[in-house]
Amino acid sequence: MEQKQIILTGDRPTGKLHVGHYVGSLKERVKLQNSGKFDEIYIMIADAQALTDNAEHPEKVRQNIIQVALDYLACGLDPDKSTIFIQSMVPELTELTFYYMNLVTVSRVQRNPTVKAEIKMRNFEASIPVGFFCYPISQAADITAFRATTVPVGEDQMPMIEQCKEIVHKFNSVYGETLTDPKIVLPDNEACLRLPGIDGKAKMSKSLGNCIYLSDEAKDIKTKVMSMYTDPNHIRVEDPGQVDGNPVFIYLDAFCKPEYFEEFLPDYNNLDELKDHYKRGGLGDVKVKKFLNNVMQAELEPIRERRKSWEKRLPDVYDILRKGSEIAEKKAAETLSDVRKAMQIDYFDNGTL
Amino acid sequence: MEQKQIILTGDRPTGKLHVGHYVGSLKERVKLQNSGKFDEIYIMIADAQALTDNAEHPEKVRQNIIQVALDYLACGLDPDKSTIFIQSMVPELTELTFYYMNLVTVSRVQRNPTVKAEIKMRNFEASIPVGFFCYPISQAADITAFRATTVPVGEDQMPMIEQCKEIVHKFNSVYGETLTDPKIVLPDNEACLRLPGIDGKAKMSKSLGNCIYLSDEAKDIKTKVMSMYTDPNHIRVEDPGQVDGNPVFIYLDAFCKPEYFEEFLPDYNNLDELKDHYKRGGLGDVKVKKFLNNVMQAELEPIRERRKSWEKRLPDVYDILRKGSEIAEKKAAETLSDVRKAMQIDYFDNGTL
Repeated sequence: MEQKQIILTGDRPTGKLHVGHYVGSLKERVKLQNSGKFDEIYIMIADAQALTDNAEHPEKVRQNIIQVALDYLACGLDPDKSTIFIQSMVPELTELTFYYMNLVTVSRVQRNPTVKAEIKMRNFEASIPVGFFCYPISQAADITAFRATTVPVGEDQMPMIEQCKEIVHKFNSVYGETLTDPKIVLPDNEACLRLPGIDGKAKMSKSLGNCIYLSDEAKDIKTKVMSMYTDPNHIRVEDPGQVDGNPVFIYLDAFCKPEYFEEFLPDYNNLDELKDHYKRGGLGDVKVKKFLNNVMQAELEPIRERRKSWEKRLPDVYDILRKGSEIAEKKAAETLSDVRKAMQIDYFDNGTL
Repeated sequence: MEQKQIILTGDRPTGKLHVGHYVGSLKERVKLQNSGKFDEIYIMIADAQALTDNAEHPEKVRQNIIQVALDYLACGLDPDKSTIFIQSMVPELTELTFYYMNLVTVSRVQRNPTVKAEIKMRNFEASIPVGFFCYPISQAADITAFRATTVPVGEDQMPMIEQCKEIVHKFNSVYGETLTDPKIVLPDNEACLRLPGIDGKAKMSKSLGNCIYLSDEAKDIKTKVMSMYTDPNHIRVEDPGQVDGNPVFIYLDAFCKPEYFEEFLPDYNNLDELKDHYKRGGLGDVKVKKFLNNVMQAELEPIRERRKSWEKRLPDVYDILRKGSEIAEKKAAETLSDVRKAMQIDYFDNGTL
């Protein structure tokens, strides 16, 4: 029997999703969803994971679940093809986490580069919540519960997948072949890997106020694009400009399609020509930003419109999440049953206590 | 409405129980059980906790579940009064653990004296399994799941109860009054707090071979008692002897009842007289050990006989554990439901997502 191709991925519901999420992950998910190559697709709204560093603000997490669900549907995730579910509605995941915790040492988690970076970013230092510290193990539970073969995530999640693979190998070697080994799929477009904020900062974040959201109105997108950070040495139009590390060009790399030139900027045949002109000098930032604005509007309008139509159908969104969570729980329960059997803690099922 | 009085306690099933367990905890439990002062009593066979440092030897844990259950029944725990259950059969406990993990910092667990001592004892150092590291949190889940008001355990477990109380206070202050604050009950007899091994070492342990088991046969008990470590400076009968720290006298403190003198050693009226004679000199170790043997035999015989009769009824023991686990799961599910409601992660129950 050929192995089923299964996707597991998701997002923490701590805010509305932005264009960085879109190009870095959502767009790829929709493409994979529509490729017909996958037997099962699970998209998880990771509320339980979000609570590991928002334990005192459960309402923040709660409020954003529906926002993330709307963003998903707006981007083209289709509940008939993808199971969209809420992590905390699948308690089997906590049980898997509990048992996997026995297979990982404290020092191994401490060496996890993503954990290190996140601890630094959150200024946690000595006061890391244990739940947050353990989230690589919880992620391994999420991935393996659905027997995911493919995990399409950002590059920063590489160490998490490594940790997951270690747990899979350890579990299978101790208890016998049970869990499925996943592989990561990264976006192939470099610009999509790490879209900077509109202020040029490496990370888009709500607190920095440097995000373009999928739910932003046309005029907000325009304001944000026109205020974008560019090459600070490109002062006069005739000055040569830098395209590398220039957010406006990184966004174009991520969003521009060839046909947009004919539509919005017919003086150029393609992005390379535009870049060459900017580098030579003689091309002003305003002209490039106006083009980027047109591109972003073209890309984001259909998403925003779909989002608005789903916003009018909130009870349907609620049903999608409830049904998705039921399907997800059923799948996770099957895996958990296999895990308990392998660990021989299925005492009352096999009568051999 | 008056608060229900509820007990939660238990043991790791990593071996048969010995006389240290008996005087340190089991005897007290049976007394509390029969006092009529408690509304609910839960006795947990902590297999999931045992797996945190025996992940690679699940069969060791599995095999000892029934042994511990037999020891419980042998000591007089009565399934009509006490709910005896298996921890891993109550998955709600892992979910509570998962959420409590967000309320405790890594450094707080590192400071837990019991965790420190256990890490040292097990030579874990840098390679502590995460599950083992987190077991104080898991214990808090066990205690609170049953709304225990009373936790009768050994003195070494004091820091665990402290940690549990901290979690209760933190949870209640963040999410509103939900969890019940437990209190510890220690054995009042000092000798019972820490019964040494027959070799005089502070801890009885299977690997040191210094235990008297509740299931030991009469001749094995005699051999062990007669070989017990005593005062090494008490060489000749006429030498003055030391009773403090002398295992034979500690065991007498723990097990001897006044009536045993009339029955086995009528030359003395009570233990103080016997001790005085030993301290003065003129009382040989063999005489004291013979008396201790008679005491131990008298104490352990009814336990061993009850154990043997339960051994002939293994299917009934199995049913007791299954029914107990069902009752325990029902109770834990109720608490979990309150916890999820307080955390507002009961999305599909209250329809306000």
